[in-house]
Amino acid sequence: MSKEKKEEMVVTPWDVSGDMDYDRLIEQFGVQRMTPDIPERIAKQAGFKHLQLRRGIYLSHRDVDWWLDEYEKGKKVGLYTGRGPSGNVHLGHMLPWFFTKYLQDAFDADLYFQMTDDEKFVFPYNLTLEQTVANGYDNALDVIACGFDAEKTHIFSDTEDISHLYKIALNVAKRVTYSTAKAVFGFKDSDNIGMIWYPAMQAMTCFLQSEREGANIPCLIPAAIDQDPYWRMTRDIAEKLGYSKPAQIHAKFLPGLGQGGKMSASQPETAIFTKDPPEVAENKIMGAFTGGQPTVREQREKGGDPTICSIYAYYYFLFEEDDGRLVELENDCRSGALICGDCKARLAKVIGRFLVDFQEKREKAKDVLDDYFLK
Amino acid sequence: MSKEKKEEMVVTPWDVSGDMDYDRLIEQFGVQRMTPDIPERIAKQAGFKHLQLRRGIYLSHRDVDWWLDEYEKGKKVGLYTGRGPSGNVHLGHMLPWFFTKYLQDAFDADLYFQMTDDEKFVFPYNLTLEQTVANGYDNALDVIACGFDAEKTHIFSDTEDISHLYKIALNVAKRVTYSTAKAVFGFKDSDNIGMIWYPAMQAMTCFLQSEREGANIPCLIPAAIDQDPYWRMTRDIAEKLGYSKPAQIHAKFLPGLGQGGKMSASQPETAIFTKDPPEVAENKIMGAFTGGQPTVREQREKGGDPTICSIYAYYYFLFEEDDGRLVELENDCRSGALICGDCKARLAKVIGRFLVDFQEKREKAKDVLDDYFLK
Repeated sequence: MSKEKKEEMVVTPWDVSGDMDYDRLIEQFGVQRMTPDIPERIAKQAGFKHLQLRRGIYLSHRDVDWWLDEYEKGKKVGLYTGRGPSGNVHLGHMLPWFFTKYLQDAFDADLYFQMTDDEKFVFPYNLTLEQTVANGYDNALDVIACGFDAEKTHIFSDTEDISHLYKIALNVAKRVTYSTAKAVFGFKDSDNIGMIWYPAMQAMTCFLQSEREGANIPCLIPAAIDQDPYWRMTRDIAEKLGYSKPAQIHAKFLPGLGQGGKMSASQPETAIFTKDPPEVAENKIMGAFTGGQPTVREQREKGGDPTICSIYAYYYFLFEEDDGRLVELENDCRSGALICGDCKARLAKVIGRFLVDFQEKREKAKDVLDDYFLK
Repeated sequence: MSKEKKEEMVVTPWDVSGDMDYDRLIEQFGVQRMTPDIPERIAKQAGFKHLQLRRGIYLSHRDVDWWLDEYEKGKKVGLYTGRGPSGNVHLGHMLPWFFTKYLQDAFDADLYFQMTDDEKFVFPYNLTLEQTVANGYDNALDVIACGFDAEKTHIFSDTEDISHLYKIALNVAKRVTYSTAKAVFGFKDSDNIGMIWYPAMQAMTCFLQSEREGANIPCLIPAAIDQDPYWRMTRDIAEKLGYSKPAQIHAKFLPGLGQGGKMSASQPETAIFTKDPPEVAENKIMGAFTGGQPTVREQREKGGDPTICSIYAYYYFLFEEDDGRLVELENDCRSGALICGDCKARLAKVIGRFLVDFQEKREKAKDVLDDYFLK
């Protein structure tokens, strides 16, 4: 177990790499640190405290307390999250979606789910528009398989549902200068004008439910913290458009199966995709980076370090619902009672079962796709 | 008759002012000077030579000879023009529309007519989106009243028909950098991101018919020369999108009723609007700037100068179809046989009759508006 040199942290809406330092991110992004009352207030409405709330996956936010105040006063509230459909969905993408489903149930909230097929085309991902649009419909199956309520969920494609969106985006765009976009997103003059336009499309969704219902509906965005620049920009103009500033709750990144960094589709061997056959996922898990010792003997003697272990992270973020059993697992690892091979094999079994079940739901989602799309 | 100091010429897609120097514009914009064979070739297809061709209203072009070649080879060709719906339509706006109607008949061509209600909202015209959209539908009545063929004319609103347009615009936007847009249009970093996006929308229409029909259809744009920067940009990327460069034929500006400059809606007293009651138009005409002498006696003695006369310009550009009678009018002015009051009164009568007739057609257009919109 060698401590490697720390990789420099990069967090922008298009690039997340290096070792995460969430404290520094909170400071850099100027967001609010999570306080213990917020998970309590959410849990009170939900009837239980979600695993992700119990385990501090949500480290920071903007105005989520205000959003809760509004709900507690009896006001209708809304949710917004989305996906950049650059390819297949992996577990890291779905981390905030599982939580969003919990929030939808708890707050009886409509969810607007944006497929940013325009973004993934105009930004340099080497994708055609046909590909990003097709990916969006495919990824929608994953969204639906998470169990969202068809009545209250409105998935939409930026390009295919643009007739519902363009006017709102123009209202945003009119109020954002190139200077501001440059300062917030780091645009260069050599970037294309589609990229420069795009922030208006992502901001627009904050007001979509309000526009459709002709009311100012408080909007909460559960998403990974890398998307925060969009909301920082949006919050500056919301009131000029006659709406409240959207609130955010920021998820940590699910680690990849390699050493350090978030789970990333660009390193498919370290990411578990929803379409992976269980045996493929198993192979990835068996080859994952752990906090264990080089040999079984050393592991038995010295124990492992779960804090740097990707396998432990999967139990922690997603697959060990029981807090008591998680502590047990941690203790067994540290003491050397548990060796990596067994621990991995057990996770592979859990994830295998999850995938079989999820893939079944995903198949069924094909029959109800239309019910979930914006009308 | 005093020669006043020349006003500096400004010609951009959003600002046309000062004394027009078309030779300098042709040089500045790098467009092709009109050659005598082009009006002949157009007239051959039409069966007659349009007043605007006979009188040199089209001074320059880009590749209109190629567009004619394609037609003569038996290929289908298309037309594109449009309107920025910032308010009511005046005769200056309609000058190229009348000519476009002649081209539609001559070449049996589909016309795509763009209402840029997004442009007029994001650019600083102090208009709401509701206003620009409403103006677009109102201005469409003027388009229809010009006599276009309902079967072959596709008027569309950028905002209301965006579902047909957005993907094509993204394909354009991906290939235009901010640097290029800045160089072509003079954008500043303090301009909003809607303005910077907009050129993709105006360029997109060059490919709209081709996209809809799945073929590379040569597109000709009859429009005033101030719009040329858009086509310069579009021509640079057309082939990257798999299409031919769009051709242009550039109209001169119809002078206003004041001294110098084009007819402009921002100086309503010098513009004749299609909705003006004949008596309002008459008042504007009677107060117009002419090339005449300060007194009737001086006019009789020295004669007038039709080359600087706004009244003469109206006969020349629009209202004296007969070339022989136009020469007569010019001679009578120069000799002093014709005095300004009589000349104005006669024009007021002609324009009054035109307006009564046009307003009737405009009323009837309300019943067929839907037939003309993009489906």
